[in-house]
Amino acid sequence: MTPSHAELRQFPVLDDCLQLGGITLTRLAERVGRTPFYAYERQHIQSRIALLRELLPPGLHLHYAIKANPMPALVQMMAPMVDGFDVASGGELKTALDTGMPPARISFAGPGKSNAELRSAVAAGVVLHLESEDEMERAARVGELLGIAPRVAVRVNPEFELKYAGMKMAGGARQFGVDAERVPAMLRKLGRLELDFFGFHLFCGAQNLSAKAIGEAQRLCVELGLRLAHHAPAPLRLLNIGGGFGVPYFPGERALDLRAVADGLRATMQTLCAAAPETQLVLELGRYLVAEGGIYVCRVLERKLSHGQVFVITDGGLHHHLAASGNFGQVIRKNYPVAIGNRMQAGPREVATVVGPLCTPLDLLADSMELARAEPGDYVVVFQSGAYGLTASPTAFLGHPPPLEVLV
Amino acid sequence: MTPSHAELRQFPVLDDCLQLGGITLTRLAERVGRTPFYAYERQHIQSRIALLRELLPPGLHLHYAIKANPMPALVQMMAPMVDGFDVASGGELKTALDTGMPPARISFAGPGKSNAELRSAVAAGVVLHLESEDEMERAARVGELLGIAPRVAVRVNPEFELKYAGMKMAGGARQFGVDAERVPAMLRKLGRLELDFFGFHLFCGAQNLSAKAIGEAQRLCVELGLRLAHHAPAPLRLLNIGGGFGVPYFPGERALDLRAVADGLRATMQTLCAAAPETQLVLELGRYLVAEGGIYVCRVLERKLSHGQVFVITDGGLHHHLAASGNFGQVIRKNYPVAIGNRMQAGPREVATVVGPLCTPLDLLADSMELARAEPGDYVVVFQSGAYGLTASPTAFLGHPPPLEVLV
Repeated sequence: MTPSHAELRQFPVLDDCLQLGGITLTRLAERVGRTPFYAYERQHIQSRIALLRELLPPGLHLHYAIKANPMPALVQMMAPMVDGFDVASGGELKTALDTGMPPARISFAGPGKSNAELRSAVAAGVVLHLESEDEMERAARVGELLGIAPRVAVRVNPEFELKYAGMKMAGGARQFGVDAERVPAMLRKLGRLELDFFGFHLFCGAQNLSAKAIGEAQRLCVELGLRLAHHAPAPLRLLNIGGGFGVPYFPGERALDLRAVADGLRATMQTLCAAAPETQLVLELGRYLVAEGGIYVCRVLERKLSHGQVFVITDGGLHHHLAASGNFGQVIRKNYPVAIGNRMQAGPREVATVVGPLCTPLDLLADSMELARAEPGDYVVVFQSGAYGLTASPTAFLGHPPPLEVLV
Repeated sequence: MTPSHAELRQFPVLDDCLQLGGITLTRLAERVGRTPFYAYERQHIQSRIALLRELLPPGLHLHYAIKANPMPALVQMMAPMVDGFDVASGGELKTALDTGMPPARISFAGPGKSNAELRSAVAAGVVLHLESEDEMERAARVGELLGIAPRVAVRVNPEFELKYAGMKMAGGARQFGVDAERVPAMLRKLGRLELDFFGFHLFCGAQNLSAKAIGEAQRLCVELGLRLAHHAPAPLRLLNIGGGFGVPYFPGERALDLRAVADGLRATMQTLCAAAPETQLVLELGRYLVAEGGIYVCRVLERKLSHGQVFVITDGGLHHHLAASGNFGQVIRKNYPVAIGNRMQAGPREVATVVGPLCTPLDLLADSMELARAEPGDYVVVFQSGAYGLTASPTAFLGHPPPLEVLV
């Protein structure tokens, strides 16, 4: 049997039309004023966070990793719902600070921070996740210059790796963090610098759908954090164990078993509380909070037949949604879940290929997929598009206008 | 033996430093004011066009396909050097018209033209490359509305495909053009509409390094064009046979034998002239005119060791140069030609991995490549970056500033 997409139930259907935020897609498109656009639903994001709060151990801090979706209105909405933000650049730092989030709850990670970024991060008072010994020295120099002791955590590159991760970010030679074996020496040096030590950051990988693999990595992260804490110049206040919770994109993928993850995390948190009751455990999620609450919408311009194959030609494509075209970190292209948003249940179906307006065969939103038979003016919807959509796309490619973004 | 990159001789080296437009890279970087940036050399583009003019048969029209690099200053410089422009969107159309290029020498191709784009193209008087029967009808309606007979050519999807092309764009089921077998019927209809028929457009594929394959495809394109001309409502004024000339990016690739291509084209043009002396043959090149004259420059922030492997961490990366990171249409990632621009010949060498500041393992500019040993402040240069660089990249990814562009 051909593998199928996981069933998507996050949005209701009314009169054959998808609804987001209680608005039918056709009306939403009129409200937005033009296609293509991205729409993110408040309700879905709120429910996702509420579910996490219900299942995850109390006392655990939940951070939002802004890189998944930095739309300012969305980040602003998130501010009172999460315990902190993780930022990956000076640009994201500005977005985070604009929300009023207390700086000590904002962490700044990334292997190539410029001196200008270090400077504004230290001035802001956010927690720098130091990715190297060299960055530690640079942060200390910036602190000296500004007369502020920079708040820092050390990002550790552990020996173990996260199994089954869509994207591995630890284990072996990496550009991220400091190899675990070198951390004790780094901490000795850190103690002699004017730096305000907060703790550790361990991030093993992203887009993982295995609760077992995530649970094991989290346990190992906490154990390693506790071992390394013996070498720290101050008690461990912060232990950020990253995120990595995946969402199902492709045929055959199934949603993460969040209850199983929560069970594992409860046990891990007990270990931490027993050994270091003053340490704040931080879980940092981006994609898992926003991906499933977002869609990308474009409009059918034409139907076209070539050698008996149906092409649905739209005004959207690769330049707006690189990941859905299969050109962002995928080795073998697979279809994202796609539907005709105003023909969700009724009417004839067909196998069609959905493409965009670009002069390249890479511009593909769905390859030979079973869809409702679409007519010009219909809306093509790409689901699971709330994270790494717009900002991960080459919007200037071939000179088309950028898509709009709405939070509904 | 491991395959190596083709030798790059387009830029001289002075005092161990690369020179572009007679300026050493270190000085150019000061002039630009910050890294990262793209630099394109006028001299190289001029020489490339001069070489083409020398070798290609006289009378052949050479168009520049703006999509390869739409930087306005570059397009402006191109205007007096080429015979026309090819545009792929309303945005590129504006850039082309701003140069003063006569509208009849601007062609607009692309499978998903919006009605708004058709309208401004018809108003401007450029030649629409019709990609479908439906687009023909839409163009005619727009013409009626504006009281202008739209200038049109029919883009044909031929039966044959371009062998060895990096990217095939013809043969079999395609979103581009009209299947050759349906063109006669379309032309009958076209003759009954208020459309000013110019000719045909055939584009078989891009990034081809085989002179033999290109020559064969060009011959077949002209033969097909002549056959289809019998069904046309007016004499063939225009035959655009596309481009597809490749440049060497990866180890083992060698430059296209331009003399061999020119020989083939001379014979093909004789065939055309004998059969249809009034027909203008158009060759449409993008990448081949600008790719090799451009570099991407970023700066080393740190050297980092992880498990014995050297990481050179820079302020540039995937967000500025997606193709060099291996995430734009490549199945297996390969290194672009990369060098340390201020250590071109002297000093120790090492095997290093060059990465950017992004929190993703995809952010890779060179993977385990032999390079001069780089220190913080040094310049990393990615060659062959004048086409599909900046505009093919997700510049908003993770909130870093966009790179600058200069034409020197």
